[in-house]
Amino acid sequence: MIRILPHRKLIHGGDIESAAERNPDSRAFLDFSVNVNPFGIPLSVREALEASVSQAGRYPDPACRRLRGELAVFEGVGEEQLLCGGGAGDLIYRVAYALRPRQSLVLAPTFEEYELALIAAGSGIRRHLLAESGGFAPTRELLADIRGCDLVVICNPNNPTGVLADPKLMADILFACMKEDAALLVDECFLDFIPAARDYTLKTRLRDYKKLIILRAFTKIFAIPGVRLGHLICPDPGLLRRIDEAGPPWGVSAAAQAAGIAACREGDFLKETARRLTLMRHFMEGELHGCGLRVYRGCANFILFYSHDESLGDKLAAGGILVRDCRGFESLGPGWFRAAVRNGEDVSRLARAISGGNLE
Amino acid sequence: MIRILPHRKLIHGGDIESAAERNPDSRAFLDFSVNVNPFGIPLSVREALEASVSQAGRYPDPACRRLRGELAVFEGVGEEQLLCGGGAGDLIYRVAYALRPRQSLVLAPTFEEYELALIAAGSGIRRHLLAESGGFAPTRELLADIRGCDLVVICNPNNPTGVLADPKLMADILFACMKEDAALLVDECFLDFIPAARDYTLKTRLRDYKKLIILRAFTKIFAIPGVRLGHLICPDPGLLRRIDEAGPPWGVSAAAQAAGIAACREGDFLKETARRLTLMRHFMEGELHGCGLRVYRGCANFILFYSHDESLGDKLAAGGILVRDCRGFESLGPGWFRAAVRNGEDVSRLARAISGGNLE
Repeated sequence: MIRILPHRKLIHGGDIESAAERNPDSRAFLDFSVNVNPFGIPLSVREALEASVSQAGRYPDPACRRLRGELAVFEGVGEEQLLCGGGAGDLIYRVAYALRPRQSLVLAPTFEEYELALIAAGSGIRRHLLAESGGFAPTRELLADIRGCDLVVICNPNNPTGVLADPKLMADILFACMKEDAALLVDECFLDFIPAARDYTLKTRLRDYKKLIILRAFTKIFAIPGVRLGHLICPDPGLLRRIDEAGPPWGVSAAAQAAGIAACREGDFLKETARRLTLMRHFMEGELHGCGLRVYRGCANFILFYSHDESLGDKLAAGGILVRDCRGFESLGPGWFRAAVRNGEDVSRLARAISGGNLE
Repeated sequence: MIRILPHRKLIHGGDIESAAERNPDSRAFLDFSVNVNPFGIPLSVREALEASVSQAGRYPDPACRRLRGELAVFEGVGEEQLLCGGGAGDLIYRVAYALRPRQSLVLAPTFEEYELALIAAGSGIRRHLLAESGGFAPTRELLADIRGCDLVVICNPNNPTGVLADPKLMADILFACMKEDAALLVDECFLDFIPAARDYTLKTRLRDYKKLIILRAFTKIFAIPGVRLGHLICPDPGLLRRIDEAGPPWGVSAAAQAAGIAACREGDFLKETARRLTLMRHFMEGELHGCGLRVYRGCANFILFYSHDESLGDKLAAGGILVRDCRGFESLGPGWFRAAVRNGEDVSRLARAISGGNLE
């Protein structure tokens, strides 16, 4: 089950530094490889970050008390149901080390860090292959795969496909996990980009299962990947404490706590982001489709597509445009790419670069 | 061997927030419980932090290339011998999870996170008890304790005693680890506070043993605990990569990388810190001794002392002064306290609070 993976530092998006090593002029890259909010950091969050510099000389509050208080209101959950971490990645590793599952079920394709963290923690990995023919949506066949697993990880909407699981199926997955006594980790980091997020979040099911763990991050939606901030929601404070103690204290910097507190009051920014982003995604899907690419309709802030030209990514990079090459994802391969939703001008430039180069 | 520990979030120093919960007026506490540089953040580092806010919208370089380049010069080692992390704590947990030792040797008393991380990673713990009669210095008896261990952790100078190990003994410990094929993790986070640091660092022995791992952090010496930045030095790049991959990518925020790059050019600040701090420590030792306390002479930026009044910490806190209660440390107990070295005015206020209260 365990593959030898390329050094993970080289397989994520947004690695401007690596691109710059290959092309010294690339600092001005038009970057579609990073799927953060195209509207950028809200002013209040930027101001909180600036003000936080004066806190650098103090240890951050290890329990993130003020931040958890604000998050409780923002998420509509209890403070004792929240654990903050230094980004979603930090929390994924803490979950893996705290639960130490023997066997875990992950989607394929999906964000690679679940599997890397679980392998680091000694877990066996079972992959539920998402079929291209079904638009990469999870199906009821997944329910049978849960048998014998201690942990099930679902990214919803999934990365890199952008596909949301059917709410009825998610309810059945939760039920199957309960029957199996398996923990269910649902990564909802991209859910805020969707106007109908409330219809899809499993936050409404916190009362039903103590081993339900929802992963959230402000990195993407508030465009602050440099800051490192994420949080978990779980109905069992004892389990959250175990997860916390599987990693170091002071995992959340003073700056991240300040940014998070400000972000919790940006509900209107979130609504406006989801509304405008949906329009932009539709436009971008049309443009990419017009370039002759095979485009998959997801609902997140990025688009998965297939090109017959496997070297499309390199050619675009040579012209100053970065997309995410998805050949490393299980059940994808050469020719698959992911591009973040950006404004019309950027998308038109991307479309011109693809078409003008006669790449298809 | 494994104790049930109080929730670790409550046992470290610098927890102003907890103090504030007990005493709402305590934001203005005179804080001797946190052992960071009393001279504060160098201006260049503060400016780098302020400028880094504009980088919050980008993913930090996961490989910390520029920072590692600067650190290589600062430390006098190769770039490939360096791994950066989100504070010393982050790196301690990565080491524990990567090495997964069956049996580890730690000092007692010492910084608690080594043991907590090793227990989290499933290691058995053997403690080398440091005797008060020997001024808490490690002795040659430690060499016998190494037998059967996979990992030896030495904090040098040690926390909370401030005691440096004899360089000849450190050489013998290294040799004993080689014989046993045990990794040797030396935490030199406090070594920069000592003018003669070069005579004590194990950096000079990197050629001798591939499993020598030196832990360093900028948190203390550059007074930036809110930022979370540390690094490891190890002659084996393969081992460093394993340690890196035992935790999440993007562990070092953009702000921390910027602060670290600026800090690497503050060699003069370090020298001046070490020189002035030594004078301040001597003054403070005299003042505390004059209060009738039993004072242990270390050489770091903090002082361990014993008071017959076990409630000294609470009484000081009621008067607006925080010291670190060390009763939770193995082989210490009630009455033991640690205080960071601060300027003469602060120390005089501390001494008056101790004496005026007839605490002894």
